[in-house]
Amino acid sequence: MFIDNLIEKIKDKKNPTVVGLDPRIESIPKFLKDMAYNIHGENVKGICEALYLFNKGIIDEIYNIVSAVKLQVAFYEAYGAEGFKVFFKTAEYAKEKGIFVIADVKRGDIADVAKMYSKAYLQHKSIDAITVNPYMGEDTILPYIDDMIKFGKGLFILVKTSNKGSGDIQDLKTNKGLVYENVAEMVNRISKMVLGKSGYSSIGAVVGATYPEVAKILRKQMPYCLFLVPGYGAQGATVDDIKNCFDNNGLGAIINSSRKVIFAYKSPNWSELYSEYEYAKAARAEVLMMRDMINNSIIKKKQIMM
Amino acid sequence: MFIDNLIEKIKDKKNPTVVGLDPRIESIPKFLKDMAYNIHGENVKGICEALYLFNKGIIDEIYNIVSAVKLQVAFYEAYGAEGFKVFFKTAEYAKEKGIFVIADVKRGDIADVAKMYSKAYLQHKSIDAITVNPYMGEDTILPYIDDMIKFGKGLFILVKTSNKGSGDIQDLKTNKGLVYENVAEMVNRISKMVLGKSGYSSIGAVVGATYPEVAKILRKQMPYCLFLVPGYGAQGATVDDIKNCFDNNGLGAIINSSRKVIFAYKSPNWSELYSEYEYAKAARAEVLMMRDMINNSIIKKKQIMM
Repeated sequence: MFIDNLIEKIKDKKNPTVVGLDPRIESIPKFLKDMAYNIHGENVKGICEALYLFNKGIIDEIYNIVSAVKLQVAFYEAYGAEGFKVFFKTAEYAKEKGIFVIADVKRGDIADVAKMYSKAYLQHKSIDAITVNPYMGEDTILPYIDDMIKFGKGLFILVKTSNKGSGDIQDLKTNKGLVYENVAEMVNRISKMVLGKSGYSSIGAVVGATYPEVAKILRKQMPYCLFLVPGYGAQGATVDDIKNCFDNNGLGAIINSSRKVIFAYKSPNWSELYSEYEYAKAARAEVLMMRDMINNSIIKKKQIMM
Repeated sequence: MFIDNLIEKIKDKKNPTVVGLDPRIESIPKFLKDMAYNIHGENVKGICEALYLFNKGIIDEIYNIVSAVKLQVAFYEAYGAEGFKVFFKTAEYAKEKGIFVIADVKRGDIADVAKMYSKAYLQHKSIDAITVNPYMGEDTILPYIDDMIKFGKGLFILVKTSNKGSGDIQDLKTNKGLVYENVAEMVNRISKMVLGKSGYSSIGAVVGATYPEVAKILRKQMPYCLFLVPGYGAQGATVDDIKNCFDNNGLGAIINSSRKVIFAYKSPNWSELYSEYEYAKAARAEVLMMRDMINNSIIKKKQIMM
């Protein structure tokens, strides 16, 4: 089952960090672009090859210290069919290396269409889980469950997102709590349909790191759900902000960081230590630092609670 | 400007019908599959070729009677990179034939990601407009506006969708009206940023045909917005249900029908008149019937109001 295997891997690696493989051509080391453009030319194919070489380098350095990578599909979709090739090629490479692959697609549509999205992603051998958008209602989420069970996959439903404007709709006050609390109620209810032996569900929730007080409430409201937490690092959330996403077992959350990890070689923290040729080593160093900071914070939280 | 050109075309063609090119391999005439499989084999490439041949046949028969086609991307995305090739190839063919192309992608993500989706679709020469999901808030919608203005494109924001479960989130009662009314307020506000000479905006709204009383309220709340109306035909809404989507000028809405048009050759209505070889002629006949029924309904509505 997706969730049990993932929880096992997080425990093994002692690392709840997820690396977001969201490559941007303008931030990729020049030597990789040169390599790719020399073969394919400076065109869509060349760009996509550069994205792949970049991803592969990162995966080679981090596969033995993280449990999962998250691929934001838009960074690939922007390049059309060639981009999709590289999206799946990256997923396949990560999978070969034993890492879980979360496809951050945030799809949401009527049941017949949801089944096609499920075919695209949950039925793909190298994708372990996807993110989905709940605005259209429960009957647009349930169609994924068949494939989840059949293929041992996971689902993360947007509940409270990390962006500044997330409150526009999600924080509206209804006669049954805020909108995101209504979504959380639905997510909690259906999460029980796919409970693993670990006590967690293969249906999780996206909960932004940028709203720690919200995370505290949602943690209680969805006890079986793994939180996929965006917003750490480049989006501004700190290690203090994410501790509410974890439960009393020090589990229950995976923390995504994209830009801050994959482009670590450009940051003041690491650029003196690592050249652009060592961009993946810089990413590894950033992941290790992030892992230790998060684990310390979880230990402190446990001590306070005792 | 997108909206002015589209309104002009709707007036020319006297037809607010949009044909949904959502091909399903199991419903495509055998002779087309045979043709495609003979060239490429019965594999993903063969399937995608069959989808394209099918779409091309439909476009050839309807391009001179409709203003727009809508491509539900999931029916292509399900086939990965090959599917995307056919998605854009179909869009290009429709564009060459002078039809507007709406990419029904329902994307929604943080600003940086929205820009990548905009690059994927609004910057593509053969896509005129896309659908987007508002759950993540206004700051996830605004990033599309630059490209809309620069490239003369359109945006349709989900407000009230056609599916049964749409009420789960969209109908929640807030202290400022229902959730979808809050979305409509936002859509109306930003629609004024891209007003055309026609008096309509290049920002429109998705409003399901299956909730006619809701459409009546939303029609007043978003006076500048073209409604993209799903739910007609196979999803159960009738010509009576959609008249509230039109304004007093008999404009302001485009009505999508997918399965009922493109697979008309299989329906009891048309299967005696058209063989599978004439599937596109059956689609044309269905469109003409739909056009006339809608136009009669608009005329009746106007007469009642006078």
